[in-house]
Amino acid sequence: MARIGIIGSAGRMGQAIAAAITDAGETLAGGIDKDGDAATIAGQCDVLVDFSSPGALEGNLDAAITVGVPIVIGTTGLEERHHFLIDHAAETIPVLQTGNTSLGVTLLAHLVREAASRLGEDWDIEIVETHHRMKVDAPSGTALLLGEAAAAGRGIRLADASERGRDGITGKRSVGTIGFASLRGGTVAGDHTVLFLADNERIALSHHAENRAIFARGAVRACQWLIGRPAGRYTMPEVLGL
Amino acid sequence: MARIGIIGSAGRMGQAIAAAITDAGETLAGGIDKDGDAATIAGQCDVLVDFSSPGALEGNLDAAITVGVPIVIGTTGLEERHHFLIDHAAETIPVLQTGNTSLGVTLLAHLVREAASRLGEDWDIEIVETHHRMKVDAPSGTALLLGEAAAAGRGIRLADASERGRDGITGKRSVGTIGFASLRGGTVAGDHTVLFLADNERIALSHHAENRAIFARGAVRACQWLIGRPAGRYTMPEVLGL
Amino acid sequence: MARIGIIGSAGRMGQAIAAAITDAGETLAGGIDKDGDAATIAGQCDVLVDFSSPGALEGNLDAAITVGVPIVIGTTGLEERHHFLIDHAAETIPVLQTGNTSLGVTLLAHLVREAASRLGEDWDIEIVETHHRMKVDAPSGTALLLGEAAAAGRGIRLADASERGRDGITGKRSVGTIGFASLRGGTVAGDHTVLFLADNERIALSHHAENRAIFARGAVRACQWLIGRPAGRYTMPEVLGL
Amino acid sequence: MARIGIIGSAGRMGQAIAAAITDAGETLAGGIDKDGDAATIAGQCDVLVDFSSPGALEGNLDAAITVGVPIVIGTTGLEERHHFLIDHAAETIPVLQTGNTSLGVTLLAHLVREAASRLGEDWDIEIVETHHRMKVDAPSGTALLLGEAAAAGRGIRLADASERGRDGITGKRSVGTIGFASLRGGTVAGDHTVLFLADNERIALSHHAENRAIFARGAVRACQWLIGRPAGRYTMPEVLGL
Repeated sequence: MARIGIIGSAGRMGQAIAAAITDAGETLAGGIDKDGDAATIAGQCDVLVDFSSPGALEGNLDAAITVGVPIVIGTTGLEERHHFLIDHAAETIPVLQTGNTSLGVTLLAHLVREAASRLGEDWDIEIVETHHRMKVDAPSGTALLLGEAAAAGRGIRLADASERGRDGITGKRSVGTIGFASLRGGTVAGDHTVLFLADNERIALSHHAENRAIFARGAVRACQWLIGRPAGRYTMPEVLGL
Repeated sequence: MARIGIIGSAGRMGQAIAAAITDAGETLAGGIDKDGDAATIAGQCDVLVDFSSPGALEGNLDAAITVGVPIVIGTTGLEERHHFLIDHAAETIPVLQTGNTSLGVTLLAHLVREAASRLGEDWDIEIVETHHRMKVDAPSGTALLLGEAAAAGRGIRLADASERGRDGITGKRSVGTIGFASLRGGTVAGDHTVLFLADNERIALSHHAENRAIFARGAVRACQWLIGRPAGRYTMPEVLGL
Repeated sequence: MARIGIIGSAGRMGQAIAAAITDAGETLAGGIDKDGDAATIAGQCDVLVDFSSPGALEGNLDAAITVGVPIVIGTTGLEERHHFLIDHAAETIPVLQTGNTSLGVTLLAHLVREAASRLGEDWDIEIVETHHRMKVDAPSGTALLLGEAAAAGRGIRLADASERGRDGITGKRSVGTIGFASLRGGTVAGDHTVLFLADNERIALSHHAENRAIFARGAVRACQWLIGRPAGRYTMPEVLGL
Repeated sequence: MARIGIIGSAGRMGQAIAAAITDAGETLAGGIDKDGDAATIAGQCDVLVDFSSPGALEGNLDAAITVGVPIVIGTTGLEERHHFLIDHAAETIPVLQTGNTSLGVTLLAHLVREAASRLGEDWDIEIVETHHRMKVDAPSGTALLLGEAAAAGRGIRLADASERGRDGITGKRSVGTIGFASLRGGTVAGDHTVLFLADNERIALSHHAENRAIFARGAVRACQWLIGRPAGRYTMPEVLGL
């Protein structure tokens, strides 16, 4: 039974992870929040999971390195210097950093990349996502992650190909672009569809989240997978063996 | 058996209407195109159907008025002065003008208006449409027609409520707005979905066109319905008895 | 502030209704369960809501009649004699009985009826629903409710037209039938789609429930609506003004 | 420019292939139908494509072997002895036999297999398909092909796991089964969706055919790919490099 410590335990994700730890039959070994210090719980844990804030990352990594405990990082808003810190920590301990801990989304991204690599530019790619009315940005991070997967499959850079906010006189669609559209309303936890549209046929690859529990479940799964790995930096696809 | 004359007979819609006339068991009484004069066929027809150009509208209406034959107008790109000409003609003959001759879309607009009138502002409205890669404008005319139906159901003006081209930091969704999103790719003849999203539930009302034959079929149905009506200006919903 | 009493308060729906009463700003005036007697709480309530069992119905109605308090009945598995008891009670007090308290489903059924009444038999009707893996029967009660709405719109009896469990050599589709298909898996709270399929086009009318809170919310809305009505038997569509 | 000969040229697929050959910039080198003999055209072709009948297969293969020309076989209703004949021919010439020539469906089957191999039995699999009202059997051959792909991904036999025609008191869903549902109506050319449903999330992989041209296009692509290959038996996934 793995002993898991939560950094950011009072937040929405922290609480969901606590529930998911119990569901998965593992042990919640400790939790800290804003003013807490990861060093106080790291020693009694087999793995740490961090959903706190970028500002706390350096201290959290130090605590994990000191004790030699693996760490899963789901914190969003990371910048280049945070990734540098993570790379450095990964020389000493196993670290898995990800912008989306859902296993379903991770698999979908894999399928999107595979489809994009097999289908030529005569298949137009469009990504549409729906989220609750309180979401303040568009497209969603997950839509962009799927767009990156499609671009990688095609061997292009998303930044060069993405087409967003289509409105007005747009002219006909440019070959090779990846379009994004965002719907907002109600309490939708997150729907994503990647469309591949060719002459007379289309393929749609979709993920539908009923609620946010799936992100907590995936984070716990990542924790379980990370224990016992050699030092290094890992990603969600590896958890699924992709 | 109704004798139907086509103005704009060589165009894509004109040809589709010719086929639909035969399918419906009616008679194609004549057709004219760019350099033709509607007066040359009006006399031998029970009804005219016009899918030509705004510039030809005045002459076409004059020909219909002279002979006293009803006319269905599906020409797009009409401006205020064209609507004035139509209103004037409708004092003498039956005229049906519409931006979309599909019976399915006409019914969908009716259902959207009904739903919007029953559901309060706690139900967010979003409209998403998909069309082929050659379409040069967004949203589609049909999406706007559906938006007008939703706005009418709520007793508001679409122009005051519409939210288009969502991208970047948008802030949370404003209460009472009607969102639009447009996907482009492949050879899609036209898909439209109107979403009503509330807390924990949503309703979706959709129309899917397999090809453009439905617009021709609806135009012929409108022709059949218009014959024998008193002078006046009519709409597609009336053809369905809505 | 309405004082609402729950019969069947310990059940899954009873608990959800308690939460929905608070959300709606109303007062939970009392609750009874299996061995309780509705008479003990009826006197202190403005309205009762019953999600208990058919066996308890007679006692519950008697308690409501004695005090002259309206009652919303969401109990499932009612038989003809229960409906007779309800009709009898409705001579003295307002009673609203329904198999589905969701406002969204109620509106969808209304739209389905409207669509079916406008579209001829050249539009084939198919109903497909998805529910969680623990559901033991198919099609769902809500799918059948939607089928009844479609049949009513067409002026036919569902029992004469329904086509279920399509498999093997079926022959071509019979004109005028209403098909049902059921998907099962995961934790899906309930998805329903009614398709109208014609030559070259189709219309889809759908409802998606994220969780069961919507049924509790609708029950509370029915309670609010029922207070102050004259004696009589009411239905969910009336709550929406349909 | 490849010279392609059609066996079954007067049939619906034969005619569609003739059009697709032109679209692809290749040459229609000849065609035979019911009473024709493939030997009369084989000599002037770089490749043959056979959409005739099982009864004609032996003669067609003989003609191809005699001249040493590759052959694509899309004929349906093949039995074990036909497959034996094909295996035999494949010792001498390149033969590609398939039940579905659509490139989109071929890719979808590949993605379904991949997803099924990655997701455990806690992801329920359901396959739903929609076809036109004239289709006489259910589920469609393509739905079964997708079911085979899912079963292969899971390392099970579809025959042991498939659940069809769900209706009435079914009990809760059995772990590890693959469900099928079929909708019929209108003129739908073919929609297929494979659902993977887990706790709180689901993945949907879909293919939508606007019309039957895609099958002809895929057949021509298979012809182009087959020319110049060594003798052997090939499949559609190989055409896509899967």
